[in-house]
Amino acid sequence: MTDTFSFKVHATDGTARTGAISTPRGEIRTPAFMPVGTVATVKGIYPEQVRATGADILLGNTYHLMLRPSAERVAKLGGLHKFMRWERPILTDSGGFQVMSLSGLRKITEKGVTFRSHVDGALHEMTPERSIEIQGLLGADIQMQLDECVSLPCEEAEAERAMRLSLRWAERSKKAFELQPKGRALYGIVQGGAVPRLRIESARELAAMDFPGYSIGGLAVGEPQEVMLDMIETVEPHLPKEKPRYLMGVGTPDDMLEAVARGIDMFDCVMPTRSGRHALAFTRFGRINLKNARHAEDSRPLDEESDCPALRDYSRAYLHHLVRCEEMLGAMLISWANLHYYQDLMRGIRGAIAEGRFEDFRRETKEGWARGDIPRLA
Amino acid sequence: MTDTFSFKVHATDGTARTGAISTPRGEIRTPAFMPVGTVATVKGIYPEQVRATGADILLGNTYHLMLRPSAERVAKLGGLHKFMRWERPILTDSGGFQVMSLSGLRKITEKGVTFRSHVDGALHEMTPERSIEIQGLLGADIQMQLDECVSLPCEEAEAERAMRLSLRWAERSKKAFELQPKGRALYGIVQGGAVPRLRIESARELAAMDFPGYSIGGLAVGEPQEVMLDMIETVEPHLPKEKPRYLMGVGTPDDMLEAVARGIDMFDCVMPTRSGRHALAFTRFGRINLKNARHAEDSRPLDEESDCPALRDYSRAYLHHLVRCEEMLGAMLISWANLHYYQDLMRGIRGAIAEGRFEDFRRETKEGWARGDIPRLA
Ligand SMILES: [Zn+2]
Ligand SMILES: [Zn+2]
Repeated sequence: MTDTFSFKVHATDGTARTGAISTPRGEIRTPAFMPVGTVATVKGIYPEQVRATGADILLGNTYHLMLRPSAERVAKLGGLHKFMRWERPILTDSGGFQVMSLSGLRKITEKGVTFRSHVDGALHEMTPERSIEIQGLLGADIQMQLDECVSLPCEEAEAERAMRLSLRWAERSKKAFELQPKGRALYGIVQGGAVPRLRIESARELAAMDFPGYSIGGLAVGEPQEVMLDMIETVEPHLPKEKPRYLMGVGTPDDMLEAVARGIDMFDCVMPTRSGRHALAFTRFGRINLKNARHAEDSRPLDEESDCPALRDYSRAYLHHLVRCEEMLGAMLISWANLHYYQDLMRGIRGAIAEGRFEDFRRETKEGWARGDIPRLA
Repeated sequence: MTDTFSFKVHATDGTARTGAISTPRGEIRTPAFMPVGTVATVKGIYPEQVRATGADILLGNTYHLMLRPSAERVAKLGGLHKFMRWERPILTDSGGFQVMSLSGLRKITEKGVTFRSHVDGALHEMTPERSIEIQGLLGADIQMQLDECVSLPCEEAEAERAMRLSLRWAERSKKAFELQPKGRALYGIVQGGAVPRLRIESARELAAMDFPGYSIGGLAVGEPQEVMLDMIETVEPHLPKEKPRYLMGVGTPDDMLEAVARGIDMFDCVMPTRSGRHALAFTRFGRINLKNARHAEDSRPLDEESDCPALRDYSRAYLHHLVRCEEMLGAMLISWANLHYYQDLMRGIRGAIAEGRFEDFRRETKEGWARGDIPRLA
C-alpha cells in the first residue's frame, strides 16, 4: 500500500500500454474497466461479486449521489466506500455530463450550471468548486473536473466556447481540489468536440496544468466509432505518457480494444449492466440475445469454458425463460456474466500487451466475435 | 440417502413435533419452511444463497410452470431440479389454487377445470390426471392432488360441494400418481372451508386413502388467524401422526409459530420475498419498514448479531437508500434477509421442540417481536 497516487507503465506494445495506478485504497491494473455504480450500487450485483469479476475500481455518479442520498449524508455515514461496501478505489465523475443530459431546465454561466433535479424538480447549482466539494465529501479516490460536454455533431464555435469554458473550470477545479487529503487525484478533461485543433489545444493546456491523470470527454455521445478513434489519435500525442488516460463512458468491447490500441488506460460504461437487464450478453462469441427463441430448449451454458458461474452454470434455456418471465434473476445473471466478460477482456488485453502480442490478441478476439455464437443445437 | 420417501418424528413437545422427511434427493428437517420459486426461481436470489439460508426444499408453482416454460419443455431439459439448479427436494402444488385465483374465465366440472392463461389468454384444461402428469414431468419430489379451494367466508353448501369434489379428485390423483417413479410422494389436501364437520370428514376420508402426507388447504385466504388456527386444531386429531402435515400458503412468522404449536410440519409462503421487494424486513425485532425515514442516517445493520450478510453487513441507511432509488439490490438484500430470518425461526423452533422448551421459545420470540426494533439513534 501507498499513501500517494501514482501511475507506472509496465510495458508498451505499439501505442498500447499496461501498467498500474497505485492509490491508498489499492492498485488499479490498467487497462482497467470500471463498472458503473450510479447510485452507490452496480445494478443487480453484490459488491463481493463485482470484485470477484476482477474489478479494481468502480465509478460513482456525482449527479445521482448529490440528489440521493446527498453528498453530506454519505459523508456523515463515513463516505461512499463504507456506504456501499466497496473498500477499493472509486472514481467519481463531476456531475456535469448528467446535469446536462438528465436534468430539467438548466442554465450555464461562467460561474457554473443551475438545473432542476430529475427526481423532484428542486433547483440546484453546480460550480467547479461545488463539484469538487461533493466528490470530496463522497471520498472519491479519483475525481473529475467540472466540464461542459457538447453533443455531436456540434458547431465549431460552440465546441470552442465549451472547450475554453472547461479549461477555465479546470483551473478552478484544481484550486478547489487543493483542500483535499493527499493520496487522491483530480483528472483534467479534454474537450473540443470533433475538431482536431480544439482537441489539441485542450490537451496541451491541460497538460501544462500538470494533472495526475487525463480524461477524454465528449466522445461516445452518438458519433460513429471512427470519429471517436480519430479524436483519440489526435489527442494522444499531446497527453503526458507518464499519466493515466481515461476515455469516459466507453464502451463496447470493440471500442475498448480499439481505444487501448490508441493508448487509453481506463474505461467506464453502463453497457454490461444495462444490456444485462435487456437480455443481451457480451461473450467471446460476440453478442448473444437471450430473448431469441433459439435458446428456448438449449441446455448449454453461455460459455462452458468460462470461470464465471453466470456464464458456465446456467443453461441458455433457463436464462431465456427468466428473461421471458421478466424475472430479476435473469437481469442479475446476465449483468454478472457481462461484467465478468468485460473484465476477462481487460485481463486478456493486459496480458497480451505485457507479452508484446497485443495485435494478435486484438485480431483473435475480433475473429471470435465475427465467428459468432456456437451452432444451434440440432 | 434413501430411495424411498419416509417421515420420522424425532421429538414432540405438546402437539408440536420435530423430525425429518427422507427423500432420494435429501432430507427435509421439520418443521420446514419452503421458499417459493414460482417460475423456477426464488425471486432475486441465487439458488446457492437459498440453500445457504438453510432451506431443505423449495416450492414450484405448477400453474405458472405449465404456462412458461411448460412441463414438457422442463422435462425435455432434464427436469425442474436441473433446470433451476436446485438438486434438493422440490414440492409442487397442483396448480388448482392459482388456476382459480389468477386465470381468466374458468369453468369447473366433475372432470376438471378449463381456464384461460393470464399470460396469453390461451385455453387450457386441468384435470386431476393432467395435474399429476405435469408434476411428474417437472420431476417434483412431493406432489399435490388437484383440489378445489373455496374463498372464505363461504356458504356451507358450497364448501361441502368443493370438499367432496376434492375427495373424488384425490382418488383420481392417487391413481394417476401410481405411474410415477418410486421415492416421490403425493399429498392429499384437506378442504371444507371454515366448517369443522366438513374439515373432519375431509381429513378422515383422506386418511383412509393412506397418503404419504397431508396438506391443509383453503386457509390463509383472508380469514382471521383465529379461524385458521381453529381449523388446524379441528383437523389435527384426524390426521395420522406418522405422516407429515403441510399448511399451504402460510404464512407470517407468528402464523408459523402458532401452527407448529398445533402440529404442523411444513409451510410455504411468498411473504419473505414479496415483502423483500416492498422494503419490509422480518427480524427478531419484528417487522421493519426500510422505507421509513428513521433509517436514512442509521449506519447500523438490521441485526448485527445475525450470521446473514444481508442482515449483518449492510447499513439500514444503505438499504433505505436502495429502496428509495428502487434499486434491484434493495429487493435482493431484503428478500435474502427475510428468507434467512424465516429459516432461523425454523431452526429455533426445531431446536426448542427437540429440547422440550417450545413454549418458552414461542413466548420469547413473540416478546422479541413485541419489544420492537432497536431504539432510534440519538
Ligand atoms: Zn473469466
Ligand atoms: Zn441466522
